[in-house]
Amino acid sequence: MFRHIKELQFEAMPERPDPLFAKKLQELIGGQYGEMSVMMQYLFQGWAVRGNQKYKDLLLDIGTEEIGHVEMLATMVARLLDDAPVNIQEEAAQDPVVGAVMGGMNPQHAIVAGLGARPSDSVGNPWMGNYIVSSGNLLADFRANLNAESQGRLQAVRLYEMTNDRGVKDMLSVLIARDAYHQNQWAAAIAELEEQEGLLVPSTFPREKERLDVSYKLYNFSEGEESSTGRWAQGPALDGQGEYEYVSEPVPEGEKPVLKPAPSNLHNTLPMDGTFRR
Amino acid sequence: MFRHIKELQFEAMPERPDPLFAKKLQELIGGQYGEMSVMMQYLFQGWAVRGNQKYKDLLLDIGTEEIGHVEMLATMVARLLDDAPVNIQEEAAQDPVVGAVMGGMNPQHAIVAGLGARPSDSVGNPWMGNYIVSSGNLLADFRANLNAESQGRLQAVRLYEMTNDRGVKDMLSVLIARDAYHQNQWAAAIAELEEQEGLLVPSTFPREKERLDVSYKLYNFSEGEESSTGRWAQGPALDGQGEYEYVSEPVPEGEKPVLKPAPSNLHNTLPMDGTFRR
Amino acid sequence: MFRHIKELQFEAMPERPDPLFAKKLQELIGGQYGEMSVMMQYLFQGWAVRGNQKYKDLLLDIGTEEIGHVEMLATMVARLLDDAPVNIQEEAAQDPVVGAVMGGMNPQHAIVAGLGARPSDSVGNPWMGNYIVSSGNLLADFRANLNAESQGRLQAVRLYEMTNDRGVKDMLSVLIARDAYHQNQWAAAIAELEEQEGLLVPSTFPREKERLDVSYKLYNFSEGEESSTGRWAQGPALDGQGEYEYVSEPVPEGEKPVLKPAPSNLHNTLPMDGTFRR
Amino acid sequence: MFRHIKELQFEAMPERPDPLFAKKLQELIGGQYGEMSVMMQYLFQGWAVRGNQKYKDLLLDIGTEEIGHVEMLATMVARLLDDAPVNIQEEAAQDPVVGAVMGGMNPQHAIVAGLGARPSDSVGNPWMGNYIVSSGNLLADFRANLNAESQGRLQAVRLYEMTNDRGVKDMLSVLIARDAYHQNQWAAAIAELEEQEGLLVPSTFPREKERLDVSYKLYNFSEGEESSTGRWAQGPALDGQGEYEYVSEPVPEGEKPVLKPAPSNLHNTLPMDGTFRR
Amino acid sequence: MFRHIKELQFEAMPERPDPLFAKKLQELIGGQYGEMSVMMQYLFQGWAVRGNQKYKDLLLDIGTEEIGHVEMLATMVARLLDDAPVNIQEEAAQDPVVGAVMGGMNPQHAIVAGLGARPSDSVGNPWMGNYIVSSGNLLADFRANLNAESQGRLQAVRLYEMTNDRGVKDMLSVLIARDAYHQNQWAAAIAELEEQEGLLVPSTFPREKERLDVSYKLYNFSEGEESSTGRWAQGPALDGQGEYEYVSEPVPEGEKPVLKPAPSNLHNTLPMDGTFRR
Amino acid sequence: MFRHIKELQFEAMPERPDPLFAKKLQELIGGQYGEMSVMMQYLFQGWAVRGNQKYKDLLLDIGTEEIGHVEMLATMVARLLDDAPVNIQEEAAQDPVVGAVMGGMNPQHAIVAGLGARPSDSVGNPWMGNYIVSSGNLLADFRANLNAESQGRLQAVRLYEMTNDRGVKDMLSVLIARDAYHQNQWAAAIAELEEQEGLLVPSTFPREKERLDVSYKLYNFSEGEESSTGRWAQGPALDGQGEYEYVSEPVPEGEKPVLKPAPSNLHNTLPMDGTFRR
Repeated sequence: MFRHIKELQFEAMPERPDPLFAKKLQELIGGQYGEMSVMMQYLFQGWAVRGNQKYKDLLLDIGTEEIGHVEMLATMVARLLDDAPVNIQEEAAQDPVVGAVMGGMNPQHAIVAGLGARPSDSVGNPWMGNYIVSSGNLLADFRANLNAESQGRLQAVRLYEMTNDRGVKDMLSVLIARDAYHQNQWAAAIAELEEQEGLLVPSTFPREKERLDVSYKLYNFSEGEESSTGRWAQGPALDGQGEYEYVSEPVPEGEKPVLKPAPSNLHNTLPMDGTFRR
Repeated sequence: MFRHIKELQFEAMPERPDPLFAKKLQELIGGQYGEMSVMMQYLFQGWAVRGNQKYKDLLLDIGTEEIGHVEMLATMVARLLDDAPVNIQEEAAQDPVVGAVMGGMNPQHAIVAGLGARPSDSVGNPWMGNYIVSSGNLLADFRANLNAESQGRLQAVRLYEMTNDRGVKDMLSVLIARDAYHQNQWAAAIAELEEQEGLLVPSTFPREKERLDVSYKLYNFSEGEESSTGRWAQGPALDGQGEYEYVSEPVPEGEKPVLKPAPSNLHNTLPMDGTFRR
Repeated sequence: MFRHIKELQFEAMPERPDPLFAKKLQELIGGQYGEMSVMMQYLFQGWAVRGNQKYKDLLLDIGTEEIGHVEMLATMVARLLDDAPVNIQEEAAQDPVVGAVMGGMNPQHAIVAGLGARPSDSVGNPWMGNYIVSSGNLLADFRANLNAESQGRLQAVRLYEMTNDRGVKDMLSVLIARDAYHQNQWAAAIAELEEQEGLLVPSTFPREKERLDVSYKLYNFSEGEESSTGRWAQGPALDGQGEYEYVSEPVPEGEKPVLKPAPSNLHNTLPMDGTFRR
Repeated sequence: MFRHIKELQFEAMPERPDPLFAKKLQELIGGQYGEMSVMMQYLFQGWAVRGNQKYKDLLLDIGTEEIGHVEMLATMVARLLDDAPVNIQEEAAQDPVVGAVMGGMNPQHAIVAGLGARPSDSVGNPWMGNYIVSSGNLLADFRANLNAESQGRLQAVRLYEMTNDRGVKDMLSVLIARDAYHQNQWAAAIAELEEQEGLLVPSTFPREKERLDVSYKLYNFSEGEESSTGRWAQGPALDGQGEYEYVSEPVPEGEKPVLKPAPSNLHNTLPMDGTFRR
Repeated sequence: MFRHIKELQFEAMPERPDPLFAKKLQELIGGQYGEMSVMMQYLFQGWAVRGNQKYKDLLLDIGTEEIGHVEMLATMVARLLDDAPVNIQEEAAQDPVVGAVMGGMNPQHAIVAGLGARPSDSVGNPWMGNYIVSSGNLLADFRANLNAESQGRLQAVRLYEMTNDRGVKDMLSVLIARDAYHQNQWAAAIAELEEQEGLLVPSTFPREKERLDVSYKLYNFSEGEESSTGRWAQGPALDGQGEYEYVSEPVPEGEKPVLKPAPSNLHNTLPMDGTFRR
Repeated sequence: MFRHIKELQFEAMPERPDPLFAKKLQELIGGQYGEMSVMMQYLFQGWAVRGNQKYKDLLLDIGTEEIGHVEMLATMVARLLDDAPVNIQEEAAQDPVVGAVMGGMNPQHAIVAGLGARPSDSVGNPWMGNYIVSSGNLLADFRANLNAESQGRLQAVRLYEMTNDRGVKDMLSVLIARDAYHQNQWAAAIAELEEQEGLLVPSTFPREKERLDVSYKLYNFSEGEESSTGRWAQGPALDGQGEYEYVSEPVPEGEKPVLKPAPSNLHNTLPMDGTFRR
């Protein structure tokens, strides 16, 4: 169960409206790695935890915080849209600066949302449930989370560089800091799990059931051997259970696939060349 | 530029058809973490590398290998669909086993694809470009890659457990092994980058520009303090630059947001309660 | 800013696992009119209110409640998936009941989510941001909300009829009751706004700017005149500003459209019949 | 069965081309509440009516009219795109007005459609089948329709304000008038149904099966009590069957959810803290 | 402008309900090549024709017919869903045939649509605007149309083979016949255009502007030379302007791409290996 | 199995950066008819061929080439984005040309991709698996391929006309040439198949099972008889098996559909007018 407090977690007040930046800032709301994604990802992961209350509590702490981040961003976008030049089409033709703003705005900010935030990204794609993952395996999911916070902080930093508005920068400096903590925090949670389970996800699958002879090989499928000099191509593997190996000339192990004709009631093209055998 | 060799990298021959399993196996082709995703993710990342030929080569080595994995899976799905019971509607009513197969099959396997693989997941959602990421920041992207290989191996393992077909298990045991290598390999590449850049993505943003006072805090937004006992809540942070702190009672720092009325030509509801001030 | 309380708003405990029903229940989580939709719709509307704190507070009251409903449903789905028969492929062929369950389950519940809820609907479509609306016009949006609660309660009632599990029915009886309140509540809010603004959205557009001569006509575009007997075809209009009129034989008012040839550099097909005139 | 008349229902002739407005006008064609949506929504609802020929006829009258509205808009968009500056890239750099036009146009209007309309919205999202609803319950669906006409008229009005082209305004003034009628008309149909069935959808579900003790309560989940002053928080409910009640301090009724561990063959993270009990 | 006639173009009456077949038949309504696609494709193409009234009329003749085909299919689906076993969950466990039906039905047919058709395909994906094309180039678009009618007839034939219901077969035999005509008809329209314009789309682009030395070559990128024996690998090209050529060993013509570092404010990974040169 | 060669198949080097053109060029990467579509379409078709090694080899030859085309375009987009003005927001307000560039850029090129290509089209829609088709019927699929190459060449030609950059034009002149070959080549493959199978897809369905009396008729559903003068309206049909016929006044053959009431547990609106009969 949730409760809402009217105050924002952190301030979200720009110095002045900027509808072009409002469009860009949407990436942090409804983009693949926006706050809707981390919010829903942590909540779904938290609700799905089976045992492990410590991790469940952690996921719900942060997932709940992220709802408030969507709120801050939605508030900021609404304010950046204040006074947007939405109906002076003709003057625009004369004032190129206004024209550029009107041409560059997200038209849905005015037509659909009446100067409110949209649940979509900086080019207008709606947020989608398949941006997130909750797998039931915490090590896998914490890696997804570390990834999300890394991409998210990178995007927030890029947006920070794209504005000179002090108020926007202030809010972004908070989000950047929180993303820094969340990287630090998921990294710690990952370290804790890797200590117990080892590097590989999932850790519980008996390794003898996989084709161990190909578990440590880098195949050189792209001409050129620059990649052979990396730590992943020689020496002990990070999982402590094998030795990396570089395969300079990978050869196929399988056969040329030849498929059986389809049943006639599917009306596929029939084989004309007698190639089928099995 | 690419070349194709007719032989499969590894064999993809089931013991017998199984259209229900073919439907499930689609998750590894066109799912969020299927082989189409890693293939396109590594290729786009490789093509976007600016400098750093070692990493570019690595990305293209693996991206190219993954095209061949889509090929193996597409071949396997086609064979699992051999002889699928597509037109005996009425006997089905009498034989419940056949009925279950027919009710449980992906109908597009027959109607749309003529018993071929589909570029979609196990419930029929088409693969989408926004499953992948290529950000230009390699540490961020390698974390995305480690995540993808972790989720991917987890899914392959689950599918391995869902079949008794020796041929399918053989192919999956290879994919599981390759995903193990790829976890080992991205982990090594991440370690290499973290050694140079530190833990945080991006490493080049001056930390004094972020709100450092909130960069190491875990806010207790979900009642209950189980999460306060983790490594992320006290002691030195993994980035070596701060000390984790647990905030038991987070308080809002921002104000209650009050938005300005919209321009009248947008025909929003006007404020009726005189609440606006700025 | 939000806080999370560990207890559920209402209980979500089924009597027994039922993976087929878990699949169906996903409609109430991630469907077009599921709880993710009302949650995000009310929150986005609330965050966008400009003035009118009473409505803002109302939207955030209910939006916050709905986050907790997603939580209840996610918990219920996870429990319905307990002990799902995910790996006994071969016995299934012998036990048709188990077979039907395995064939009918959402495969992503096992492969992707490890027996957790998914952010998608009953056929597996991911939830999308464009299910929701927040327009800045409260009368328009409250009608969207009344619609959502009507469709939502209808779906919850249908699901109630599809199960005999006492625990599931108990939870649904709560959701059905809440949807009843929310219909009652949005209807009241609509009545309040209509009293001030009248029936038409938006109320602020000067009516003389619309083609008033066609503002009260029902055109009989579908042969047969059954629709001419409704209240919408004669008598005073509900907006109190006109008289309904039934047009039995609608005639076109516009011309046949003839479009100008495209510029040659677009390489459209050129007109071959000299038809263009303007 | 349908027939097409070459003339447009109403004229669709702009005074002059305006590719930027063409982009915006797409919202009324392929947006969430565009004419494709109402057209398909009314047709699908009409085709699904079981009995009730009066409503079926009404739905098909209007659904058929809406096909003609898509036609008018597609014609208008094509004309607004006449002579669009699609290939003078270099002059554009010198003439900022042309530059703004070229930068602000929907590139698919030229590259994909050769200056024709697109089945998508103002930011380029394709129209989707899940924008519409047809539930089989007419009161629910008529509320969806009233909502669609409210959002649709609001958007048309906003677009009317964004142009000075007399021809475009003329066409929009017709669409605004028709949307006014359709609001008037669905409101009348709703009133007719509510008279028979009452306020709640669906009306046929026995109320004693819902948790009536929570059917009239507003829970104060968002701090602050502004919403307690509304008509929805006290006095007789609009459905005439209960009394509204305001709950200032909502308390959870459910337990903390604790989920059972997943079967081992799913390779979820195992519980490490012995928390499971049921 | 359109008119609707109550009677169906052709009968759509099954002998008996069959909810599993209703699910499959959705492919012909809302699938990539279903009737919604051809309907919208022909209408959008027709509305976009610039000059060429003969083709415009043709497109609108057929586009209008296809609306009626969606109507026939929606009617058929509704009837196939009559009496669907939607609420006898528990008997289902005892009767495997009913169980298979209930497990195999599209759950949205009952929960969302109340036994009506859905604007989506056989696995539940919503129809999307980007299934269709209207390019302004008629030869290109007529090829799209011939393709759509070919895939569409193939799917209708496969569905015909999957049922024994006489009424369903009767309706499909009509749709199959109409798709046969439409193949015949688009093929004739294509022949007419090719006679005037030649084989290549677009015909108006000066051929000397393309790299004519590579305009007739088949590159052997997939090991094995089976494809060298086709008509496309030798002899005069079908466009009458060149000679097909088979290139057994394709070699790259471009350089290894080396990209310039990104500006520092994007915080991409910096080159560490001094590889950039331009 | 695939291999990658570092060199590009053809050069991809613009004379100078042009972020606006980079946005447009995305249509050729991730658009409905971009190179990702032909690449995946040919590979999936190739992998699904059952027998017919000549066609399988052909599909894999070209599918493999197309991967290299995505690579060329991704490289070109990255170079067009070099030095994009991503952070000088304020100067932009003063320099309208820079402003137009910044307003017109795809914001995800900077924020998400760090100046790399995106797997999406010119308006930002992600590439989707349902852009492609692989049906198992080669004649159907080769028509899809001819269509794709026709639309693709048309779009490449339009983009060629929109730029003056010599390097971009050089690359496009190659892609235009390859699309010319591919039209020539699929046309030849189609001719070869039609010679054996005839015009209609599928050729194996016994024609007597279709309603042959409607297989050659053009119904005049759109008022006006311009379409009656085409080759498709009279004379021998192209399939050599019938005579085209023009039906000036099409009449419905079916009845008015009247649907049976839904079961009461679905809570649809009940019929109020006693219209049901069957």
